[in-house]
Amino acid sequence: MKFKTIEWRGDCVRLLDQRALPRRACYIVCKDASSVAEAIQKMAIRGAPAIGVAAAMGVALAAKRSRTLRPALFRQEMERVCERMRQTRPTAVNLFWALDRMKKVWDQRLNFDVEEMKERLEAEAIRIFEEDREVNQKIGENGKVLIHEGDGVLTHCNAGGLATAGYGTALGVIYAAWTEGKRFRVFVDETRPLLQGSRLTAWELSREGIPTTILTDNMAGWLMSKREVTLVLVGADRIARNGDTANKIGTYGLAVLSKWHGIPFYVAAPTSTLDLSLVSGKGIPVEEREPEEVTRFAGVRVAPKACRAINPAFDITPHSLIHGIITEKGIIRRPFGKRLKRMKEE
Amino acid sequence: MKFKTIEWRGDCVRLLDQRALPRRACYIVCKDASSVAEAIQKMAIRGAPAIGVAAAMGVALAAKRSRTLRPALFRQEMERVCERMRQTRPTAVNLFWALDRMKKVWDQRLNFDVEEMKERLEAEAIRIFEEDREVNQKIGENGKVLIHEGDGVLTHCNAGGLATAGYGTALGVIYAAWTEGKRFRVFVDETRPLLQGSRLTAWELSREGIPTTILTDNMAGWLMSKREVTLVLVGADRIARNGDTANKIGTYGLAVLSKWHGIPFYVAAPTSTLDLSLVSGKGIPVEEREPEEVTRFAGVRVAPKACRAINPAFDITPHSLIHGIITEKGIIRRPFGKRLKRMKEE
Repeated sequence: MKFKTIEWRGDCVRLLDQRALPRRACYIVCKDASSVAEAIQKMAIRGAPAIGVAAAMGVALAAKRSRTLRPALFRQEMERVCERMRQTRPTAVNLFWALDRMKKVWDQRLNFDVEEMKERLEAEAIRIFEEDREVNQKIGENGKVLIHEGDGVLTHCNAGGLATAGYGTALGVIYAAWTEGKRFRVFVDETRPLLQGSRLTAWELSREGIPTTILTDNMAGWLMSKREVTLVLVGADRIARNGDTANKIGTYGLAVLSKWHGIPFYVAAPTSTLDLSLVSGKGIPVEEREPEEVTRFAGVRVAPKACRAINPAFDITPHSLIHGIITEKGIIRRPFGKRLKRMKEE
Repeated sequence: MKFKTIEWRGDCVRLLDQRALPRRACYIVCKDASSVAEAIQKMAIRGAPAIGVAAAMGVALAAKRSRTLRPALFRQEMERVCERMRQTRPTAVNLFWALDRMKKVWDQRLNFDVEEMKERLEAEAIRIFEEDREVNQKIGENGKVLIHEGDGVLTHCNAGGLATAGYGTALGVIYAAWTEGKRFRVFVDETRPLLQGSRLTAWELSREGIPTTILTDNMAGWLMSKREVTLVLVGADRIARNGDTANKIGTYGLAVLSKWHGIPFYVAAPTSTLDLSLVSGKGIPVEEREPEEVTRFAGVRVAPKACRAINPAFDITPHSLIHGIITEKGIIRRPFGKRLKRMKEE
């Protein structure tokens, strides 16, 4: 990867502002937790694994800036920061998972030296970041067998280096297969309303020299019927115990279309995206964002003023439409229930 | 309708420029056939029935402006104009149908008075325009029984007053049901890349006070799974003898999703959209437009420069996914083959 999605810089966190891509590669420097929270909420940084890393770094920043030496007060401050982070985006579980990991660091002991705790929290945030990169590489290695020479791989939204600490989940699989020498084409749904496909995925892939073709979301079915798509790979924001998967809006429709055309449909995600507390996808909260994302584009209003618009940021794909889930621990196939549980607990 | 999509003004044709809607309602005045052809090609006017009317008026304009008094020369000029018109857009058959009707006027006699022929051609163009309005009203009357109180009707692209001489096909059905007093909601796919849904359909419907909700194309499947959509109504650009239907890209995917969710999927079109010369949809040419329509959004480049994009303007929905075709002569149901032929020939 020739770019850094997120970077810990000791006294600040530097984020690549994804809203300006691909036109400008500019960075946001966050000096406190609340500016990290804002960057997550406004989607300067997005992608389930990346926002988990960002939230952890936000907590580590807050710890560094704390003035208290009293453990009880420090703990209270940190809990407040976590609460703020939790409010940013409701669907991707990695955010909550990362905050829980940070929380465990101070929950493990009743009394502690605050200065030492700050160092522990910084180390934990960096560990979450580094683990995510390693996990992504493993997902790529585990999944690359699914891509064959001459394939047409369709992906949706951005599950790449920009959605993670680096490398990517669905795109990680693509990078690993490409690096191995396999040659194939990638089709990228533009992914309205925020165009993470045409802006971000196309940008990443073309920097790596991988042949990339953009399509509007409504072209996928037609392309499948023409047999140009032979495999669908997407990321995930939360996976319930039975394999039901929340991912960027449009994923569900793609999964139905894949099933209809007999095209394998795979989800690539780290096990931190598994939420074993949920029996099925019904329990996953779906974020509803501002309708203006649909009625406007790049500051230009496209729809009449009086019109309503809906804007669910995610949808839930039932496990019955998913061929397999590619994780850092291997590819899990149906029936997902027991296998996901076993894998997460390993 | 409080707007005029196309209007014959004796010495010119006035078109509502649909590229500027909904932000501005501005008109293009075409004084000759080549500016009509350009308006069709650049989609200032679009929609299968509307471009048929426009092409006929373009021929009538060319006739008016002709300087010759010799029938053979006049005929040659007219054939050239028809040829130019035929080059504009390949998929919608109404364009060819309308040109054939104009051609018949001079083909009926070997010798004629050129001045009289000019009047005949003007009269024929106006007749095509007026018939289209009547046909649309009938489609509305025939189809309105399909909409029930409380329905959620999803439509794609624009098959409304703006796509026809007035009133509309799929939207004609909606207008007729609404005028009768039925109350329901309409969901409008924005229809990338040119946003005929959020720009044109939403504009038309909200002017008529019909509750309209815009969604990005990739939200339709999710909305169906939530049972919010109870009926899908779309227009058509060409219908083959077996019922296979070419319509705006994305229609095919919607039809598959409708089938999957058990939601009735209807096509509304005049019989002039039937092409009995084609056994199936395989013979319908699908227009491929500039990739820039996809890589740009509302004039702003969104994708990296190096990236390819595909841009088929239409797709073909197989007859097996279509519940029925609403025409001015009634609703045709499967098996379409014989029934379409009989109806067209009636």
